Amino acid sequence: MEAKLARRMSCISPFYVMALLARAKELEQQGRDIIHLEIGEPDFPTPAPIIAAGLEQIATGQVKYTPAAGLPALREKIVAFYQTQYGVCIAKEQVFITPGASGAFMADPCYPCNSNFSYLFNGQPQLIPVTAADDYQLTAAQIQSHWQAHSKGVLIASPANPTGTLIKPAVLESAIDQTTALGGCFFSDEIYHGLVYGQQASCALQFSQEVFVINSFSKYFGMTGWRVGWLIVPPAFIGAAEKLAQNIFISTATASQYAALAAFAPETLQELERRRIEFAARRDFLYQALQEIGFKIAIKPEGAFYIYANCQQFTDDSFQFAHDLLEATGVAVTPGKDFGQHNAQHYLRFAYTTPIARLQEAVQRLQQFINGRKG
Amino acid sequence: MEAKLARRMSCISPFYVMALLARAKELEQQGRDIIHLEIGEPDFPTPAPIIAAGLEQIATGQVKYTPAAGLPALREKIVAFYQTQYGVCIAKEQVFITPGASGAFMADPCYPCNSNFSYLFNGQPQLIPVTAADDYQLTAAQIQSHWQAHSKGVLIASPANPTGTLIKPAVLESAIDQTTALGGCFFSDEIYHGLVYGQQASCALQFSQEVFVINSFSKYFGMTGWRVGWLIVPPAFIGAAEKLAQNIFISTATASQYAALAAFAPETLQELERRRIEFAARRDFLYQALQEIGFKIAIKPEGAFYIYANCQQFTDDSFQFAHDLLEATGVAVTPGKDFGQHNAQHYLRFAYTTPIARLQEAVQRLQQFINGRKG
Repeated sequence: MEAKLARRMSCISPFYVMALLARAKELEQQGRDIIHLEIGEPDFPTPAPIIAAGLEQIATGQVKYTPAAGLPALREKIVAFYQTQYGVCIAKEQVFITPGASGAFMADPCYPCNSNFSYLFNGQPQLIPVTAADDYQLTAAQIQSHWQAHSKGVLIASPANPTGTLIKPAVLESAIDQTTALGGCFFSDEIYHGLVYGQQASCALQFSQEVFVINSFSKYFGMTGWRVGWLIVPPAFIGAAEKLAQNIFISTATASQYAALAAFAPETLQELERRRIEFAARRDFLYQALQEIGFKIAIKPEGAFYIYANCQQFTDDSFQFAHDLLEATGVAVTPGKDFGQHNAQHYLRFAYTTPIARLQEAVQRLQQFINGRKG
Repeated sequence: MEAKLARRMSCISPFYVMALLARAKELEQQGRDIIHLEIGEPDFPTPAPIIAAGLEQIATGQVKYTPAAGLPALREKIVAFYQTQYGVCIAKEQVFITPGASGAFMADPCYPCNSNFSYLFNGQPQLIPVTAADDYQLTAAQIQSHWQAHSKGVLIASPANPTGTLIKPAVLESAIDQTTALGGCFFSDEIYHGLVYGQQASCALQFSQEVFVINSFSKYFGMTGWRVGWLIVPPAFIGAAEKLAQNIFISTATASQYAALAAFAPETLQELERRRIEFAARRDFLYQALQEIGFKIAIKPEGAFYIYANCQQFTDDSFQFAHDLLEATGVAVTPGKDFGQHNAQHYLRFAYTTPIARLQEAVQRLQQFINGRKG
């Protein structure tokens, strides 16, 4: 007899962009100049004070397990950050330092791992089509109308991946109230907080203590490869989160946690502000340039580093378009298919995680590619 | 309505030793001298060449995501290590760099996270009582007699936690053959390989390509706080493992992977050999000393850094005994309850992760404690 894969493995999709990324690397090795607009990773290095804190810890040689819930000093710094940044008061015990994140019931389009996490735990994610009119965000009315007897909770992300949109404070508040009234858990993915180019993003904790907040040092703080994030749980879930942390991670990488202690230092925050301004300039450039060459962008992205652009004018198959574009021009973008089913074939995600000069070059190549298809 | 915890959360046990550890730390803060024999973490620092490799990577500032399956150079080094160490040939694609481990169907006593992992994925772990006569290891006959229609696989660990025993090569081979014949997956937890004081431990891959091998840089290589391990999967499972890695970890901490590149360097291996000799001396001391004061140790441990000692002569409640011992003498040990149900109340686990002088002091305190109870 042969060992079999669990049935739920067939529900778990790979990232479609991975095949494209592999091809892009192959072309690069052949000497082609590839412009990477497919990657959700900032191009900036980790800020110097964070690097210094990590080096200092490792140099001691004592890179040992930390408590499962994380380094106490880091949990305290996060508590202080929530007080300063959002004016909310949380207990240190609610903060768990993590090497990852988690999921529920969510917008389409959204980050694909969320669905896959649900399948992994035998959950059934329910993707709810969202529209530009609602900032591509779930509303209380949608939550109410889609709620079923076995529904467990709601996940929102703001700023969102792939659309870069924010949820309005009043919409967030009513979504939390609606979910709570239905007896569900509310999860707020806030990993792109800080990377906003108009108004500040609201934190779910500003409206309720009974929410789960998922955040990370990866994006805004420039610490992708360090693998460190955090989760804030409602007081009643502290014991359960503690048990899960003990069993799932044992602990998060020690040097990464010590490095993260420097993430909230004034000199780090100054550097991050310079980067935010640079991201804003890239957003402005790409938002305008893509529209000038014929892409439709229904709503101006206000955060993260993504533009979710409609390419229906050029193709009914954005997946094929992305592959053809890569082969013909060396510009790599992510097809909508990676983020859900709702009109996914008409969308491409552009990540502005590369300098403006390269974005300009990418737009020129795109224009030539589009002109070539017309002819 | 109130949000509820998933029913399976109630199956997931915390580590009982955690409460004891918390109390030990409290006593330490009050100025008491605590001897830690409860901790499964080597007292040695990370070897210098590994530290240097980690520092060098971080100093570049480019601490970015690696591929989900891990740094290609590290996967290659692991392939070479299996060739040298065990004479087995695996493909680089079978090796996945991980920040953690995973579980199935297992011996009692065993490492408690394994059961909890099964519950988390809605599995039902079946603990099979094992005896000293079988080196506290599962046999092919036990696997066959306990197999049920819905059984999925078998997990063995050698050297084992908490018993420190090895599985004999012929027993391992027949366990693999039996599991394969039943159509199950075979998981071999080899995280204590290298820490052996008599014969070498066998690797499951020496008997079959169709096994899952779980290993880690934590214990033998002294890299606990770096959070980096590896998983070797049968060729047919490469695609599935790749999807899971993309979704669950995204990637393992980058600096930890670069640091691990130095784990197989000759100067690292020389240092690890010195440490292994020191662990062997501690094992010899503690094995004899515990028996001299009345503990029964049915089988001499051959690996890891644990002794699983029967304390039935002193108590029928090793959990209470461990708490009383800590309060009275400041010696912290782990109660059997953390490793299963089979006679757990008659056992204590002693970790020799502390120098011999401290082990001597601990044994003296233990003897006084026992004498005091008799009187």
